[in-house]
Parts: sequence; C-alpha cells; structure tokens
Amino acid sequence: MRIILISLSLLISTFTFSQEDSIFLRKIYNEALTKGNAYEDLRSLCKDIGARVTGSAEAEMAVQWGKRKMESYGFDKVYLQEIQVPHWERGTTEAGWIRLTNGELIKVNLLALGGSIGTSGLMKGEVIGFNTLEELKNANKKEIEGKIVFINQHMDEQQIVTFRAYGGCYAIRGYGAIEAGHLGAKAVIIRSLGLPIDEHPHTGSMSYADSVSKIPAAALSTLDADKLANVLKNESAEFILEMDCRDYPDVTSYNVIGEMTGSEKPNNIITFGGHLDSWDTGEGAHDDGAGIAHTLEAMRILKELDYKPKNTLRLVFFMNEENGNRGGKGYAEWAKGQKHENHILALESDRGGFSPRGFHIDGTEEQLKILRSYSEIFRPYELHVFDKGFGGVDISPLKEQFEGIPLVGFVPDSQRYFDFHHAPSDVFENVNKRELELGCAAIASVLYLFDLAL
Amino acid sequence: MRIILISLSLLISTFTFSQEDSIFLRKIYNEALTKGNAYEDLRSLCKDIGARVTGSAEAEMAVQWGKRKMESYGFDKVYLQEIQVPHWERGTTEAGWIRLTNGELIKVNLLALGGSIGTSGLMKGEVIGFNTLEELKNANKKEIEGKIVFINQHMDEQQIVTFRAYGGCYAIRGYGAIEAGHLGAKAVIIRSLGLPIDEHPHTGSMSYADSVSKIPAAALSTLDADKLANVLKNESAEFILEMDCRDYPDVTSYNVIGEMTGSEKPNNIITFGGHLDSWDTGEGAHDDGAGIAHTLEAMRILKELDYKPKNTLRLVFFMNEENGNRGGKGYAEWAKGQKHENHILALESDRGGFSPRGFHIDGTEEQLKILRSYSEIFRPYELHVFDKGFGGVDISPLKEQFEGIPLVGFVPDSQRYFDFHHAPSDVFENVNKRELELGCAAIASVLYLFDLAL
Repeated sequence: MRIILISLSLLISTFTFSQEDSIFLRKIYNEALTKGNAYEDLRSLCKDIGARVTGSAEAEMAVQWGKRKMESYGFDKVYLQEIQVPHWERGTTEAGWIRLTNGELIKVNLLALGGSIGTSGLMKGEVIGFNTLEELKNANKKEIEGKIVFINQHMDEQQIVTFRAYGGCYAIRGYGAIEAGHLGAKAVIIRSLGLPIDEHPHTGSMSYADSVSKIPAAALSTLDADKLANVLKNESAEFILEMDCRDYPDVTSYNVIGEMTGSEKPNNIITFGGHLDSWDTGEGAHDDGAGIAHTLEAMRILKELDYKPKNTLRLVFFMNEENGNRGGKGYAEWAKGQKHENHILALESDRGGFSPRGFHIDGTEEQLKILRSYSEIFRPYELHVFDKGFGGVDISPLKEQFEGIPLVGFVPDSQRYFDFHHAPSDVFENVNKRELELGCAAIASVLYLFDLAL
Repeated sequence: MRIILISLSLLISTFTFSQEDSIFLRKIYNEALTKGNAYEDLRSLCKDIGARVTGSAEAEMAVQWGKRKMESYGFDKVYLQEIQVPHWERGTTEAGWIRLTNGELIKVNLLALGGSIGTSGLMKGEVIGFNTLEELKNANKKEIEGKIVFINQHMDEQQIVTFRAYGGCYAIRGYGAIEAGHLGAKAVIIRSLGLPIDEHPHTGSMSYADSVSKIPAAALSTLDADKLANVLKNESAEFILEMDCRDYPDVTSYNVIGEMTGSEKPNNIITFGGHLDSWDTGEGAHDDGAGIAHTLEAMRILKELDYKPKNTLRLVFFMNEENGNRGGKGYAEWAKGQKHENHILALESDRGGFSPRGFHIDGTEEQLKILRSYSEIFRPYELHVFDKGFGGVDISPLKEQFEGIPLVGFVPDSQRYFDFHHAPSDVFENVNKRELELGCAAIASVLYLFDLAL
C-alpha cells in the first residue's frame, strides 16, 4: 500500500504541467536560441565596459549600461536603488619574485587579494611554506615572525562539483592574512583558488580582523605556486613583493532594477538577477556577466513573448557581491524596512555561463517538491539537477528579512568555472554562445513556472 | 496491481549495484581526476602527431603512437589489424574568391570536402544560390548548367542536442555534389556544417555517384557563407575557386588493438574505442582524439586498479572512420569471418571530450533496462542520459555480424561540438582537462558495470 501511494504521488508530481506550458517553454527556448540578445549583451558588458570592481569608474558605467539596457527592452519600471559601497583599488604596481639562495630571480604572476593593504615599497622576506591553512594554524610563532607565509593548499580535484573544491579552499584566501598576521608574518601569499595548472593568478575577497595587524596578501598562479613549492623542497628562498593597492572611502553606487508588474498579485515580488560588479581582472564574463546576461535576457524573452506575469517579476543587477555584498544586504533591508514588500521567491545566476544542469533551492521540503515537479518538463532541455542547495550570495539576505522565502540558484555545469574565476582569463571569448543562451531559456522557463505556481 | 509491479521493478532495477561497486567507481574517478594520463596523451596525439587523415604520413605515425601507448600501459596483448584504406590528399592549393559585378574581390575561407576532385587550375563561374538542398533538387537544369551552386542551408539552432541539427544538414555535404552535378553545375560550395558564425570552414565526407559527373565541392566558413548570401540578395556574383585535392590508390593501414584477457569468459569480447584518423585540418582533438584518450585511459585505469575483467576487454583504435569506415567494417568482418569470435557488447566515444551526460544504447528493451539500472550509481557523477540512441560509426558494422549485440555510445554535452567539428579550431587547446577526465572515468565505470552484468 505504501508503494502504491509513492507511485501515485510520483505520478501527480510528474504531471503538474500542461501541454500549454510545454509549448510555452519551447517558445522561450526558440527565442533564446534563434533571436537571442544575450551573447551580444554580454559582449557589450565585457568589451564596452570591461572589468568593473565596486567603486571604479567601470562599475558606475555598468550601472548606466544596465539601466539603459533595461529601458531599451521596455520593462514596466526601471530605476536605481542607492547604496554605499567600499572602494578598493589595485593601484599601478604589483609584482613579485622568488629569490633563490644563489641570487637567481624568478618572476611570478600574482594578484593582490581584494581588500589587501599594499607593501609600502619593496618588501622582502624569507618564505615559509605550508601545505594547508591547518598546518599554518598549528605552527610555532617563532618560526613565522618576520617571514612571508606561503600557503600552497590545492583545490581537491576529486570533487565532481567544483564548487565543493572551492568551498574547501575558501578559508586560505578569506582568512590566511589573519592567521599569518596573528603569528607575526609580514605578508601572506597563497596558491590561487583555481583548478588548472596555468599562469593565471586568481584574486578574490579576503578579511582582516581588528585584533590582528594587517599584512599584504596576494595569490600566485598555480604554476608559480608549484615552482615555489619545488624550490622550498630543496632550499630556502626569499620572496620579493611590491603592491600599492589600498582602500578609499566608501562611495555611492546603485542596484539597477527593472520590473514587469504582476497582473493579478502585483504586490507579490519575485526577485531575480545576478551581480553587476566583478573583480578588476579579466572582464567578469562568467563572474557574473553571464548572470547579468542570463537574467536580463530571461525578462526580455518573457516580455517579447507577451507573457503577463501574475506576480511582479523584478530583475535586479546587484552591486558589490564580490567584496561586501552591500547590494544584496541593502536591497533586502530596503524591500522589508522601507517598502514593506511581500517577497515570495528569489533566484540568482552566479555560477557562470556554462551548459545548464538545473536548479538548487534553499527552502522547505514543500518548495523542493515544487521545483522537482519541473524535472519532466525540462527533460527535453537536458536539465536534471533539481536539488536542495545554495541560492546565491546577493539574494541570501532576503532570507533574514522574509521568513520562508525560497531562494533558487541556477546550476550550470561547473567543470570549467574555476579555470576562469577571478582570473585574467575570465573574458568574453571564454563564454560559449549556445551555452549562455540555454541558461537564459532555463531561467526564463523556471520563472514562468514559479510565477504560475505561486 | 500493475502499479505495484512497476514500483517493484523500479526498485529492483535501481538497486542492481552494490556498495562495493560504488566504491570501485569512486576509485576510478579519483584515478582519472588526480593521476590521469588522458590530457597528456591527448596533447601528445594532437601535438606530436597532429591532424591524421587516412592514408597520410601522420595517420601511419598515429598507428605507431597508439601501439606504443598500449604497450607502455602493459595490456595483455597489443597488435595491429591490417586493412586497406582510401588515400585522398588536399594538395597545396586551395583558395576561393567572390567577384562582385564591379570587379571587387572578396577572399573567402574554404576547405575542399573530403574526397572532392580538384578544379584543374582556376575555375570561375556565376554563382547560383539555394537556401536548402530541397530547393536545389527542385530547380530547373537550365538555370544551373555551367554555374557554381551555393547551398546556404543553416543548421537548426532550435535543436537542443546539436547532433540533431547536424543530422538535418548532413545531406548538403554528403550529396550536394551529386545533386548539383546532376543538374549540370560545374562546382558546388556549401555553408559549413557549424553552429557559430565564424571564420572557420568545416570539411567532412562527401559522395559522388557513378551516374553523375564528378564536380569539385568545398565548404565556406559560416561568416563567408553569410557574406555571399548577402551579395546574392542584391546582385549576381562570380565565384573563383582553385583546389588541387585528389584521390590516390588505396594504401595499407591498421586498426590498433589492445586487450585485457577475460578471467572467466575470455572468448566473450567487449569491444570499445574511438577512431584514430581525423580530418586533415586542426588536430582532431575532439574528433576523435578525445575518444582515443577516453578509451585508452579507461583501460589504463582498470588495469591500474588491478581489475580482472570476467570477459575480454578489447580496446580498438579504428582507422578511417571519417571517409570510408574501412576500419570498422574490416574489424567486424575479421572478428566474425576469420576469428569466429563471440562479441557481447561494443562501446564507442566519438562525440568529443566534453562534460559527460551519459550513454546511449542501440539495443533491445532488456539491454536498455540494464543501462538504465546504472542511473543511480552514476548520479554523484552528474550522468543523467541513459536512453536508446546511436552507438557509433566504427562499431556499427558489428551489428550486422553479431545479432543482438548492444552498441553503446558515450554521450557528452553537445553544445560546443559543432564549434570545432572538422574545422581548423579542433585543437588540443579547446579541450578542457577535467571534462576529458570525467569522460574517461564514466567510460571505465560503465565498462566495469557491463563486464559484471554480462
């Protein structure tokens, strides 16, 4: 009897969509694949604007770009939400060398971590190497004082989903400067959080603690990290570093917002988007130009197909995901505290522009069941991941403000993401047109299905 | 009652693997992802050998390369199977121009189709354009006689699986010269069978008919096809073409074969492999260097993990898939007619080195059920396609020789395949290391599971 019940519930959840829905999804995909704007929009964001770290001229131009794009697509409302954002600049000098005991110099490719202080001219120090952050934490202060700490922790290649490998290494970048500074190091250099062995260093956010002196922090390319690790197997080495990156006072910036007003329940808000800022290297093509292009195109397609949403669909280009999430936090506080809105679902694309696999949901079992009921209608489009999981950094503050809101994360194939993430190679040329377009269609489709269901 | 039966059979088929199997698959994946040779093997095939069209010096070097590789991995037996293969060469001259009515010349990127005759010096003729092969077939002979036919048929971007779009266009390349020649054309130029709009022409096989005069055939890059189509909208144009490609007499070549002898049923053969030949442009990296690297690595991993197959696992690097399938046909005939072997399954990888999606099977419902029973054990590895479908060109002749043999095709993501297929851009740099390695692990895993099941 139990088996019968399971079977019936499977049948029911399998057929919650109609033929009309299937036809509409096919229209969405056809529009994305044959008359899509996403690839050209992404090209424009990458090439006409470029890298757009929070507080930079490019970030402000990206705000204008985003607003104009939304206006050009004729959404019902387009406006900016003002926020205060951090302003860190890499500066003009950034260079590092390994000096061997025989005096030979090996130039390395490195990037200051985002938020790092500079070196105030040329900094030199003996290198002390650690394989993991744990090893460093357990080290003796005497061994470390006055030295430059090198953490050579590798991302775990055995992880099938590369984000898990990233999660396992995140702390070396986030907290390496605190741990090394705490033990008296004068600087910390880490192995880049990237999977390939290549010449591209990967930057990213880092933290300081009030109780610990700030020290400069940089990431070496994986190739150079291997070189340095090899040197340290046989001899001691000195590291020479100069970086003039620094913080500036906060500046005013904006989330860019566009809406299609709900025809039945306009006060019910479905927020979706990506983040407009990027790191200041490469072009922020996958991270998160792809998310911007995905979600902009998803709303353009729904409008182009003359879809009238029941609930209000609100597209948000968030500012400052990379180093502060002021856009995400500011948006959630504004929506709840100032606007007293009713938010029913949020969706984010911030895992790159690769071939779609499905969606994750951060929500209840019931909400997961709704997502899972879409697996059949998405089968022709090769989506198969409909699981619990993380929604996204930008939308995560909504959870604190709106109890029970489901957060949905778009899940593309993850294999190539950490080839490009926060690296000079995150450029438009490394995004595939069809893979990007299929992501747009998947997102437009799931927004349509959720709008019907909620 | 029927529902109960369905549920029970689902439960049974879901749990045909043991925890031991799960652990072994994890070992296979770990070996592929952390100690794999596939990426370096593919680099070597692409860079130390290069493009390797049947009959070329490179194809013969690839045979030696393959035999040495298999020997270096210590398989139980390594040997060559002699076959006779066609020998066509592109020659040294290959160039084309559009001449406008005002005399202006537009140089185009083109490639002779494989097997085409040359032009015997400079050939000129008025262009007559068609949107599809069907349009050409319905045209009037008088309009076409003495002209150069241009077929601008686009691959259908609406297809989610790109191989379907390819299938829909295959005939313009395969039979365009016959149809155009039949109507008196002096040459045929086609839009390349590729999805992106770019400068790379895509070659590939073509046919002549005994009853129709042979005419030269070439493919324009999609960018140049668009240019020519635009010109023809407004004015007439001449096409100028020179190609000195030609056929030579058949030569001797080889399939390269390596075996792990079955411990229980050595006379039961499981054949698996890819094709060693490629077209003569690019490096044959995805087509089918990836298939060679996949299957070589799959057997290396099984041996490295000390797996003793019940049945004989036979790795075959087939020669001449691209223009004749002499390797595939010769292998099947030799296995049945000369060796009187018992073949129980065959598997092929010839869809590129992209992120794995699953497997297709060309077989009975019962055989499909076995494949489907693997879906749960592959879930952590993100495989989700376990459907009926095509096995592969090289293994397809086995079906005629061995009644009821299931043919299994490895199915990676198809979105980028027709960016590179038969084009100068099919080079090692366009293959991702992890995507390739995951394919090796998927193939080793499914061979292990089938070996246990059969």
